[in-house]
Amino acid sequence: MYDYKDRVNKIQEIMKIKGIDYYLIPLSDYHNSEYFDDYYNVIKFVSGFTGSNATIVISAEKAYLWTDGRYFIQAESELKGSGIELMKQGLKSTPSVEKFLQDNMDEDEVLAFDGRLVSVASYEKYMRAMGKNRRLFDADIISKMWDSRGEFTYSSPWSLKEDYAGESTISKLLRIRGHENFDKADALLISDLCDIAWTLNLRGSDIEHMPVFYSYLIITNSDAILYSDAPMASDVREYLDEEQITLKSYDDIYDDLSDRHFYTKNNIYKMLIDKNTCNTALYSLLNEHTKVLQSRSVVGSLKCIKNDTQINNIRKCHIKDGVAVTKFLYHLDMQLEEGCTELMLAELLHELRAKQEGFLDESFDTISAWAEHGAIVHYEPTKVSDAAITRDNFLLVDSGGHYLEGTTDITRTMCIGMPTPKMIHDYTLVLKSNIALARAVFLDGTGGKSLDILTRNVMWQEGYDFLHGTGHGVGYLLSVHEGPNNISIRAKEDVAIKPGMVTTDEPGIYIEGEYGIRLENELLCVPHSSGDTGDFYSFECLTLAPFQAKCIDINMLTLEEIEYLNNYHSRVYDIISPYLDDDEAEWLQEATRELSI
Amino acid sequence: MYDYKDRVNKIQEIMKIKGIDYYLIPLSDYHNSEYFDDYYNVIKFVSGFTGSNATIVISAEKAYLWTDGRYFIQAESELKGSGIELMKQGLKSTPSVEKFLQDNMDEDEVLAFDGRLVSVASYEKYMRAMGKNRRLFDADIISKMWDSRGEFTYSSPWSLKEDYAGESTISKLLRIRGHENFDKADALLISDLCDIAWTLNLRGSDIEHMPVFYSYLIITNSDAILYSDAPMASDVREYLDEEQITLKSYDDIYDDLSDRHFYTKNNIYKMLIDKNTCNTALYSLLNEHTKVLQSRSVVGSLKCIKNDTQINNIRKCHIKDGVAVTKFLYHLDMQLEEGCTELMLAELLHELRAKQEGFLDESFDTISAWAEHGAIVHYEPTKVSDAAITRDNFLLVDSGGHYLEGTTDITRTMCIGMPTPKMIHDYTLVLKSNIALARAVFLDGTGGKSLDILTRNVMWQEGYDFLHGTGHGVGYLLSVHEGPNNISIRAKEDVAIKPGMVTTDEPGIYIEGEYGIRLENELLCVPHSSGDTGDFYSFECLTLAPFQAKCIDINMLTLEEIEYLNNYHSRVYDIISPYLDDDEAEWLQEATRELSI
Repeated sequence: MYDYKDRVNKIQEIMKIKGIDYYLIPLSDYHNSEYFDDYYNVIKFVSGFTGSNATIVISAEKAYLWTDGRYFIQAESELKGSGIELMKQGLKSTPSVEKFLQDNMDEDEVLAFDGRLVSVASYEKYMRAMGKNRRLFDADIISKMWDSRGEFTYSSPWSLKEDYAGESTISKLLRIRGHENFDKADALLISDLCDIAWTLNLRGSDIEHMPVFYSYLIITNSDAILYSDAPMASDVREYLDEEQITLKSYDDIYDDLSDRHFYTKNNIYKMLIDKNTCNTALYSLLNEHTKVLQSRSVVGSLKCIKNDTQINNIRKCHIKDGVAVTKFLYHLDMQLEEGCTELMLAELLHELRAKQEGFLDESFDTISAWAEHGAIVHYEPTKVSDAAITRDNFLLVDSGGHYLEGTTDITRTMCIGMPTPKMIHDYTLVLKSNIALARAVFLDGTGGKSLDILTRNVMWQEGYDFLHGTGHGVGYLLSVHEGPNNISIRAKEDVAIKPGMVTTDEPGIYIEGEYGIRLENELLCVPHSSGDTGDFYSFECLTLAPFQAKCIDINMLTLEEIEYLNNYHSRVYDIISPYLDDDEAEWLQEATRELSI
Repeated sequence: MYDYKDRVNKIQEIMKIKGIDYYLIPLSDYHNSEYFDDYYNVIKFVSGFTGSNATIVISAEKAYLWTDGRYFIQAESELKGSGIELMKQGLKSTPSVEKFLQDNMDEDEVLAFDGRLVSVASYEKYMRAMGKNRRLFDADIISKMWDSRGEFTYSSPWSLKEDYAGESTISKLLRIRGHENFDKADALLISDLCDIAWTLNLRGSDIEHMPVFYSYLIITNSDAILYSDAPMASDVREYLDEEQITLKSYDDIYDDLSDRHFYTKNNIYKMLIDKNTCNTALYSLLNEHTKVLQSRSVVGSLKCIKNDTQINNIRKCHIKDGVAVTKFLYHLDMQLEEGCTELMLAELLHELRAKQEGFLDESFDTISAWAEHGAIVHYEPTKVSDAAITRDNFLLVDSGGHYLEGTTDITRTMCIGMPTPKMIHDYTLVLKSNIALARAVFLDGTGGKSLDILTRNVMWQEGYDFLHGTGHGVGYLLSVHEGPNNISIRAKEDVAIKPGMVTTDEPGIYIEGEYGIRLENELLCVPHSSGDTGDFYSFECLTLAPFQAKCIDINMLTLEEIEYLNNYHSRVYDIISPYLDDDEAEWLQEATRELSI
């Protein structure tokens, strides 16, 4: 504990020397990745806090750490003795980081941070909060203090063959260069690790649950430069040569962007960036030498539309995933042993997935949440929280896998024992919400923000709502959360859902202290029909695993909903049962039997 | 006909003298009002065209008139001999006015128009289309040529008592001055005639179907100046004095805004305008002397939330309107005579409304559309088009009234004779769409663009769509089309629907050459319940008139929809029947009898 107090003091000393009044430390890597290695976890080094959401602000005299309700108890324990004050996010009395800075900083005081850890989008947010008299300053105070940090061990990237990717890098580069936003610029800086992996048809393992490798990619009209320290196997090196991609060291991008000859040599007068993943250090260098254009990720707008090869593969990986999950549900219903815990079940599900050919990794840490834990939306069981499964309550399991054929994300909620009428009511309402989106037919141009009304209106009718989005895009052997498509009334932008997009459908009901219910399928947008006013689209449900009949009140369903459910269950049985043993298949037949009023 | 050719030539001569390459003539008054007197109809004076949608562009050699499909035949006839080329809007081969100017104007050519006829919003649209090298120029070429124009006869405004308005002008001025957008400015220029009428609790009759009077209103923090040439009755004059509103002549606003002393005297350094109704002539003057701030109409954001007095009155006027419409429907069903035409029925409906106490005017020209005329969305019967009602098809009647207690808008579609199964199917589908919105429960913050998905998804399921919005706001004894609230997937902005807003719910199906079906009720947004994530709202249906049972396929309805319909019909019977004679009441009882599967 003494270490952390010391570290904060040391930072304050350096701040004084450098003329910094406030120092801000976000939890991020240099690409604003969703997940990343502890190598980048400055928060943990400075404070000892190990949660997945945190921001630290250090002033001349004090230090503060912001985190949310999931981590209040853990943070209080981990921060003990560090002298760092816990700022409880979500409480009305707690100001946001921006508000805190706005309220506490005097005019002409200096705020600093390591520019590599702050995206341009966050930087602009702080700028707006600070007003025009405040000064922001790029300073990496930590690296020199961090003796124990060691070197980052880069993984060796591997080629995703065209049988899986469905499109060559040459073709992707052509499409990127032909994109309307690229057209306005001389070059594109790709900072999102998934965007780079998609473009180059390469995958890595620098980050758990996200098969990418650390790098930057600059694409001009004639060239492409990959900045990466990854040890490249000879076939990958040959592949990059063939594709005429120049390979440089990861940190060389800072040197290149500092060097005015780099710009003239490559004819870069306007550089296009993605402000959500480009960091402020790179942005500052660019700003000195070029006109910087910002747009939503160009690659993001291409990679969200899956091609036919990908779609065929995705259908296959959902069969594999469906088999694993169905076996898991069978186990829960028929073989659950006393004393079994959330973590044990997460491990069992992992084993079932790992038996599937082409399985590479979980796509995120499994949420296995018994009873009241299910009501904590981001709950993940830890050794400390791990609960034994008893009876007559819900187990909520949200999980997914990475396969060569794609990435999955599925949630099923199972009642162990007997459900109460209230539990049946709530489960059925969530199911109705899920079906409302799954059955949607919509005109070309309709956005996910609008579509969310179909899902939520079902719950709103009864005064229920849920505080997360209804759905997010899913990558192809990339991040399980992929933009720009999503289904959310809270989205800033109403992104149109187009054929080829894969989006989750995961409404929920959360009763604090009692249980959580979430039912999640992945939906592929497909063409439906053509009308006078435009083309109509609908969804093909990719996910294949049964819902729980004993939790469904059929009287709450419309005839259309019953028909949808029966068709879905019949598909699940037909497709999944060939991969099950006899007992499992018999169980599935019963679990998917036709419901009628 | 010779006149019009002459007039165009004269305009071209003047253009040459003034150095104008293209002259644009929109169809508008100086306030971008939805309806207006022929006094402002420059299009008619120049071309002889009398349709309600037109734009003329005149070049050195040629002249063009844009209008839409409703008027193609009429325009061809009316433009004959004028030398003006008809540009058929909506055909793919026809460029928009902006595109035409963009394609045809050379760099540094000059476009001119009468700035009073062009709103700032339209001006900005032309600016964008023209690019930076083009020059726009304010020139009124027409007035001096228009010997036959005469003087406009201003109506005498009258006071809407607080029993009807529900809020004093003093209170309204306070709220306008307290509005967050007003806060950023020193004064507000109100150019929308409905906004002025609402603020001052005055009504006029300068425009048919819109009870307003021509004027501008400037509100500073301490003063209010009304620019109007209306003959003010002594009680109105006293009222304005009491409210400390300075009265000036209508055209004085141009002198005032040209005079820099006016700004200093009134401490106006920043002026707030509504770009949708403020004209370019005023805007140019303002730009010379002040900083102009634009926002959505400040008054619009206040007047769209009806107060309790208004709401109680609105409920009353819908009873009156419901009685008139129900008597009309009874007539259609029981007393329709051979040879009766669309116009005769529109006249009958007018008479039935006029018998209601407090009735002042129709709120728009009645759409009375038999059979295939119903498929023309903006159809209005004329002496030429007037069709005789025969049998076994739909009559679509969209109409409304102005009462002291508010403004109404209702559409009913009635099958005269026997409906085919296809007609029953389509009618029921429209009804389901209507009910989907009417039954909605939604979280605070939900916008009309999102809510529209509930209505349309019902039709989209079967490949139907309709090309108009699902709903618009309705004024209180003001315009029947009132923003900012609306229900439309095509809206630019997703305006949140809040308690106190009145919005129509009018989905439709239009089968070209056969029939049109539209079912329209007005919905009042009301609080519904409170949830963990916020307040929920729902709708109270204001409109009271039966749907047509013989056109409803009950098997297409869900139990919830049947329950809604039965409750609605039972309310209609209970509220309307006391105002009917015995035969009518008996008919209504049958028309509203409970449906069950």
